[in-house]
Amino acid sequence: MIRKLFLTIGLMQVSAVYAQDAPIVHDAEYYILEAQLSDQWVTDDAAVDAKLAEFRRVNDGKPPNIINILIDDLGFGDMGIPELNAVRGYETPNINRFSDEGMRMVRMYTEPSCTPTRVAMMTGRLPVRMGMGDTTVDIAGFGLPRQEVTLAEVLKKAGYATSHVGKWHMGDIAESWAMNQGFDYAQHAVHQQGQLTVYHDDAIREQVSVGIQDFDPAYTLDDFFRPDASAMATVIEGETDGKIREVRMETGERWNSAKYDEMNQAFQDKTLEELRRLSAAGEPFFLQYWPMLPLDNTRTGRDGPESPNGGLYVDKMQQLDGWLGEIFAAMEELGISGNTIVVLMGDNGHFTKYSPQSGFTPMIFRGGKGDTTEGGIRVDAFIRWPEMIGADTIVNNIIHVSDLYTTLARFAGATDFVPRDRLIDGVDQSASLLFEDESKGRRDSVIVYSIDTPKAIIKDKLKLNLPAAGQNAIGADFFDIFRDTHEKYPVSTEVGAWGGQEFVRILGRHLARKEKYPDGAPATGVPYEGIENLRPETQAAVEAFMVKRASVQK
Amino acid sequence: MIRKLFLTIGLMQVSAVYAQDAPIVHDAEYYILEAQLSDQWVTDDAAVDAKLAEFRRVNDGKPPNIINILIDDLGFGDMGIPELNAVRGYETPNINRFSDEGMRMVRMYTEPSCTPTRVAMMTGRLPVRMGMGDTTVDIAGFGLPRQEVTLAEVLKKAGYATSHVGKWHMGDIAESWAMNQGFDYAQHAVHQQGQLTVYHDDAIREQVSVGIQDFDPAYTLDDFFRPDASAMATVIEGETDGKIREVRMETGERWNSAKYDEMNQAFQDKTLEELRRLSAAGEPFFLQYWPMLPLDNTRTGRDGPESPNGGLYVDKMQQLDGWLGEIFAAMEELGISGNTIVVLMGDNGHFTKYSPQSGFTPMIFRGGKGDTTEGGIRVDAFIRWPEMIGADTIVNNIIHVSDLYTTLARFAGATDFVPRDRLIDGVDQSASLLFEDESKGRRDSVIVYSIDTPKAIIKDKLKLNLPAAGQNAIGADFFDIFRDTHEKYPVSTEVGAWGGQEFVRILGRHLARKEKYPDGAPATGVPYEGIENLRPETQAAVEAFMVKRASVQK
Repeated sequence: MIRKLFLTIGLMQVSAVYAQDAPIVHDAEYYILEAQLSDQWVTDDAAVDAKLAEFRRVNDGKPPNIINILIDDLGFGDMGIPELNAVRGYETPNINRFSDEGMRMVRMYTEPSCTPTRVAMMTGRLPVRMGMGDTTVDIAGFGLPRQEVTLAEVLKKAGYATSHVGKWHMGDIAESWAMNQGFDYAQHAVHQQGQLTVYHDDAIREQVSVGIQDFDPAYTLDDFFRPDASAMATVIEGETDGKIREVRMETGERWNSAKYDEMNQAFQDKTLEELRRLSAAGEPFFLQYWPMLPLDNTRTGRDGPESPNGGLYVDKMQQLDGWLGEIFAAMEELGISGNTIVVLMGDNGHFTKYSPQSGFTPMIFRGGKGDTTEGGIRVDAFIRWPEMIGADTIVNNIIHVSDLYTTLARFAGATDFVPRDRLIDGVDQSASLLFEDESKGRRDSVIVYSIDTPKAIIKDKLKLNLPAAGQNAIGADFFDIFRDTHEKYPVSTEVGAWGGQEFVRILGRHLARKEKYPDGAPATGVPYEGIENLRPETQAAVEAFMVKRASVQK
Repeated sequence: MIRKLFLTIGLMQVSAVYAQDAPIVHDAEYYILEAQLSDQWVTDDAAVDAKLAEFRRVNDGKPPNIINILIDDLGFGDMGIPELNAVRGYETPNINRFSDEGMRMVRMYTEPSCTPTRVAMMTGRLPVRMGMGDTTVDIAGFGLPRQEVTLAEVLKKAGYATSHVGKWHMGDIAESWAMNQGFDYAQHAVHQQGQLTVYHDDAIREQVSVGIQDFDPAYTLDDFFRPDASAMATVIEGETDGKIREVRMETGERWNSAKYDEMNQAFQDKTLEELRRLSAAGEPFFLQYWPMLPLDNTRTGRDGPESPNGGLYVDKMQQLDGWLGEIFAAMEELGISGNTIVVLMGDNGHFTKYSPQSGFTPMIFRGGKGDTTEGGIRVDAFIRWPEMIGADTIVNNIIHVSDLYTTLARFAGATDFVPRDRLIDGVDQSASLLFEDESKGRRDSVIVYSIDTPKAIIKDKLKLNLPAAGQNAIGADFFDIFRDTHEKYPVSTEVGAWGGQEFVRILGRHLARKEKYPDGAPATGVPYEGIENLRPETQAAVEAFMVKRASVQK
């Protein structure tokens, strides 16, 4: 039976009853594994429950705090491995230390770009299920629907205080924003770095983005064509059901590199402030810090630390490393390192567009942000929970970013609040993480989408690039990811005839399941509606957008 | 004054006098660094001397034992980094533990293939200086000249017992062989794996090497054209000035996969035997173990450990990992771990020809064996010396494999026996290793040859692919190795106009120095002469070779 229940009785009691009553609805492949492994899973679940119960017992009956740090555009191997730091000629000492204290999830798969990864993490669902697979940069008038139940909402129902600082990037309409999606408090940018590092005046002067404003108006008719970072809404702040205001931006003010630095510093300061506030309040808390770094694009006015060897992104990553060090130190000082889970990871591979000047080029895997090769979707990913997960450990089972939704909910004792009326792609990886055991993972495959199109299927160590329409799967490129990290040498001759077909069947089951749980659409609306201090130039930009939107209905 | 002295007085006394009297002759770039850093070097040298003297004081007046393990064809990141083990889906636990106990030399540069790397390591000189830059596989009638002073000869003069087991691959004539180049005892293959894994019957049946014997003799006139592994000399054994015999191969016997396995096991057993013998004898010793693994090419008769995820080479590397574990355990048992230097490294990048079935594909760097891209010449390289070099450390200064000659001689107190009558490319890296300090390295550049042609120059983090004849250096490909490990994005537009010219000047100085110290030629001779039990089929193969050699003089 699929139903929604918001129970308020003790978590442990609910868990046993409710989980039996209405399990979470998963995609097809989950049930194939379950059919083979359910006995083991029952045993593992009992062991996980016992371990979590023991944690709560010694933690004054409370579940752990959760801090979720999501770094913007970062390839595999850029953090936490001193040997690879040396290969790159820079160091990330704080993150390396953090890595030594926690667990590396070596096969963490994200989506290929910012928005879909964040949607998968927040909803536990593939972004295609609500049409959020694309990454928009400027005013677009759509976003994450209010019907989605975010991890913040799940945790809030389980008694967590929730707060979000930094990037968000899941829509420019009010219902999509963090303070309307389960966060008690949020301060976040409305858009992303395309606006904040490319569309502004310094970037245009540096020719980072040719064509935006370096044109002779004599030859230009359409004022609505080019984006203007300063006219778009920048950073908003608000509380659930409260007023939403744009911060640190006055009417007529121009956005530039200095403003970007100021914003990033403000996010860092606010995160530390929230950490102290939430820690003092005593409730279990869920704090998200999604820095808008290391991605950056201009050098104007830079006076921060610079890597002697890295490019611009590496400079920024080293700055970020220092900032994360501050956060870890503050946790120590507050005495919450032990009872707080910290997840730290990248949201997708390197942004290779500015290679090599950025300092970010693919190293271990092929490709970067936007690609469905491993370089686009494999990232550095760590989880630290000192009292529960072994220090300096590694798990190598496949974990998709959506699994964090289900797994963190489990750790928080909030599994009951995961909705049962929709398909949840995230599976519960608690047992593999808590017992450092790949064989206890609950997923051995990932379907890799690019926006709304499935492009590849990974199952254990094999990866099929899905054949185009009309192409026989036997001839599709098929890779052994362990042997060939750069996806350069297809092994189709050996396994294509079996694997191609078998993988296409995986896709078939995935698509067949959509008949029961069809994909939805994103929410649409008037951009920025609900920002009470909207600047006149921003209002004008919205009106220009509305003219464009209406043009197709004339 | 350049002269040769073989002094027999106490090492410490000689050192002070002799070093001042006639320094080692280096290539031009060394003197440019020396002009800038000599004050620091004097200070560092005194500190190194003090540290080495202290070691000898507590080690009963003796310098350290040295074990030099050189693995065949291995890319960067295949050993010692658990995260990358996970990426590859296999484990090298013994080597990883070894890595934790020692120092990783992250920027160890080798030559692009087996023979030149081994020549550089043994002579401290670029292989081009005696025409040994190529890697021959079958009967060739040339090799390392007796005039070269190998590291074994240097150490022997300083009182070391010397022994070599495994690969050698520096010629098929007697004067080139290990027992005639400074090793008291040697057991080594004459050729390399081309013969031992490709030219034999199992490999031909498996079609590993199409064309060698799978032909219709009706269409074949030249019986001398194709090599036959069984007719070529295989493994020889002997002592200095003693008889040299081929071992484990009878007249009429065929070489095959089983023989290859038997040989490798015998090398391992002999290494352990030599370790015990040398350790018991009480003199400081220099033991080389150059396994002919992991490179392998056939699956016939395989019953060894197989990696569930790796290909054939990875299977073999895991076998090798176990074998190295045995050696490390034996060292513990013998109580010599503390006073023995162990160098462990690969000889060049992956042999990517059989990718990905081999399990070896480029990962962090571009290219493999034979290439002058980083993937061909960057290898995993470790040095362990528990009482002198910090555990789990990294140095990132450029080290060329020839530097091991000079550096190990220094550690052994044998610097006086490094010849002064020729140019030595290896520099003394003692200070950077002993003090874990890149700034104490004595090299910031490498000239990368392919056989006899300089192909690239690396200086600090920059690499120029040398322009072809008539090509302007401004347009040559120029890479930032830190930012772009795959050498995919030339930065010529930024630095080519400066760097191209400056790098060409480095080459110019290197070439100008050859006027004073000209390149020589390899020694030539009758193959296998001096093997006292040469088989009739081997004698016939030599005669065929001599016919070929003589053909150009008819």
